[in-house]
Amino acid sequence: MFSGEILQKVRETRPLIHHITNWVTIYDCANIVRAIGALPVMAHAKEEAGDMASIASALVLNIGTLTEYIIESMKIAGKSANQKNIPIVLDAVGVGATKLRDDKAFELLNELKIDIVKGNSSEIAKLAGENVRTKGVEATKVEADLIAVAKKLSVERKCVTVITGKEDIVTGGNKTYLVKNGHAMLGSVVGTGCMAASVIACFAAVEKDYAKAASAGLACFCIAGELAAERSKGPGTFKENFYDEIYNLNKETIDKMEKIEEL
Amino acid sequence: MFSGEILQKVRETRPLIHHITNWVTIYDCANIVRAIGALPVMAHAKEEAGDMASIASALVLNIGTLTEYIIESMKIAGKSANQKNIPIVLDAVGVGATKLRDDKAFELLNELKIDIVKGNSSEIAKLAGENVRTKGVEATKVEADLIAVAKKLSVERKCVTVITGKEDIVTGGNKTYLVKNGHAMLGSVVGTGCMAASVIACFAAVEKDYAKAASAGLACFCIAGELAAERSKGPGTFKENFYDEIYNLNKETIDKMEKIEEL
Amino acid sequence: MFSGEILQKVRETRPLIHHITNWVTIYDCANIVRAIGALPVMAHAKEEAGDMASIASALVLNIGTLTEYIIESMKIAGKSANQKNIPIVLDAVGVGATKLRDDKAFELLNELKIDIVKGNSSEIAKLAGENVRTKGVEATKVEADLIAVAKKLSVERKCVTVITGKEDIVTGGNKTYLVKNGHAMLGSVVGTGCMAASVIACFAAVEKDYAKAASAGLACFCIAGELAAERSKGPGTFKENFYDEIYNLNKETIDKMEKIEEL
Repeated sequence: MFSGEILQKVRETRPLIHHITNWVTIYDCANIVRAIGALPVMAHAKEEAGDMASIASALVLNIGTLTEYIIESMKIAGKSANQKNIPIVLDAVGVGATKLRDDKAFELLNELKIDIVKGNSSEIAKLAGENVRTKGVEATKVEADLIAVAKKLSVERKCVTVITGKEDIVTGGNKTYLVKNGHAMLGSVVGTGCMAASVIACFAAVEKDYAKAASAGLACFCIAGELAAERSKGPGTFKENFYDEIYNLNKETIDKMEKIEEL
Repeated sequence: MFSGEILQKVRETRPLIHHITNWVTIYDCANIVRAIGALPVMAHAKEEAGDMASIASALVLNIGTLTEYIIESMKIAGKSANQKNIPIVLDAVGVGATKLRDDKAFELLNELKIDIVKGNSSEIAKLAGENVRTKGVEATKVEADLIAVAKKLSVERKCVTVITGKEDIVTGGNKTYLVKNGHAMLGSVVGTGCMAASVIACFAAVEKDYAKAASAGLACFCIAGELAAERSKGPGTFKENFYDEIYNLNKETIDKMEKIEEL
Repeated sequence: MFSGEILQKVRETRPLIHHITNWVTIYDCANIVRAIGALPVMAHAKEEAGDMASIASALVLNIGTLTEYIIESMKIAGKSANQKNIPIVLDAVGVGATKLRDDKAFELLNELKIDIVKGNSSEIAKLAGENVRTKGVEATKVEADLIAVAKKLSVERKCVTVITGKEDIVTGGNKTYLVKNGHAMLGSVVGTGCMAASVIACFAAVEKDYAKAASAGLACFCIAGELAAERSKGPGTFKENFYDEIYNLNKETIDKMEKIEEL
């Protein structure tokens, strides 16, 4: 498939990935961007959010620990990114858990052109209009068909939608990919969801077909997870091995292990 | 004793543990909650702090990097938790070092019903009315008898008091436990104190005898520390091994290693 | 040379190092201070920044995720430190990338007596008046002679200047050191730049010749990096091994490996 080639492009061009993100996983978001071969920057002051976004190649907006201030900064950065056609990834962390998260996620979707929206099943279902509740930042069971939910959001918002889970769903509305790589250990560590959004942004920075970019980013991420799990005794060693595997990942390994299905 | 059983209950029920905490160890607080088998969430915006607390099974308030804003959010979350009888753990980080920390810790104790107050010797001594100074967030020597200090605070505030140290003291005023597990390496890594408070909250979410819950949480935490130290070369590898050990801990091991003494 | 002896002094006196720093690497700044044998504290509330600085032995100001609020706190802490002749280290993260960073870094330099200014080549060049742009927080190529640039800033600001890079430059204007230790793996992990500033502060807390202190701190830091790289498979394991090596570093090893050149 295509993941290995896009990864090579990330490493050759080393795009700058601007984040306005949460205080829990901010380090890991930065560190995974560097490990995969791109350059992270985090800057949330209103006075510089727009300037920093304008020199970046992609922008990640992650609402994990949103406040009014942070949402305002996201809008400033987002408008700046939109003006220059810099892709924006929205990680809809905890949407469905509180009214604030729902309201602010919809505000971002209404006021900015978001290129890729990512979340777990209940986060995305909420954005697509389903009546669901997220348990903090943890997905709850969604009764609706997830592929249909993702497609609905993509059509409504003219975006690529990513639902992470045992199999990741990536759709632009028409074209849909299932990323079947992955390992349960990725769920044993806090922050892998956020890190996946940052990796997707790295790929979107160098590949304008965002459904392909997101699928490729997720496949590489999950392959590293599979490799790391093999030699880990628990979430502590897994996480460190995961960074090693992301850093050492090459096209040959990806070509062998990649499991992306186009529906 | 009882620690292994309470841990099993944590893993079966996977309680949601809401945190309003500091920016230094926020990731490790979340990650230890997940490693032990519960679900962390961190949300400090005033607009959602109450909503998030109301769907949680325990609330951790950690003043490590307090600001006026954060304290206000803690009060909102705390009142919401109090209304639903959701247990609150206060980690009194740095009390005794600055007037702000002293004032704000007393405000929280006065305005909320705090179920478990945790700190090192000088932090707790300060809250109990002793004339001590904390060196940043580091305990200083306290001349008074620490068990008497802890009991005094428990009686005054109708709470369980935890003083961490070489041996941890846990008391509800009448019943007092000494947790004699532990390892010096736990002190070589930043954040183990904060993580211990998060683990105590996981246990308090499933065991209403909070002195038992706190002792059990500390015993499990310290046993994992002992196991990790055996196979570590320094604080870096220790921390990763510690996560593995917490994750892999089982009742059999705990029953063998647990050293809780009831006074 | 002198690095091993200064390290021993850090471990004997365990100085308290106050930080007002960024949200990305705040944990690692604290953790490296503890690993090397000193005591970290992080406190950014305006109401306590001055109090905390006044009981510390060094103050680190790192503008990695600056806001107006954080800069105000830095000024309060800095004035308090200046009054007591407590050394201040400024880590000029991202200067040259946005107007906000440039403006605020100059404000700090104008309103406080900063003892050690540290940055990468383009950050320092910008502070010294060169016309350069930083790529987020990543150094760009500077055409000017870096030693001359560092000396210029030192003379202008009566400070020690540190430019990190393949070889680190440390100068007080007259005396100049090149620290030739180091390893490429240090650049594969986010936060090593920030951590280096924290280590420099530990050394400045116990050695009043700040050019010596900064060189020694960097040499120890880089030696640990060389040792860790030998037994690591990538940035994940490298980082954990690095903490082990810093913690286990002793004078004998340093004396053998230290490569500081006085110009």
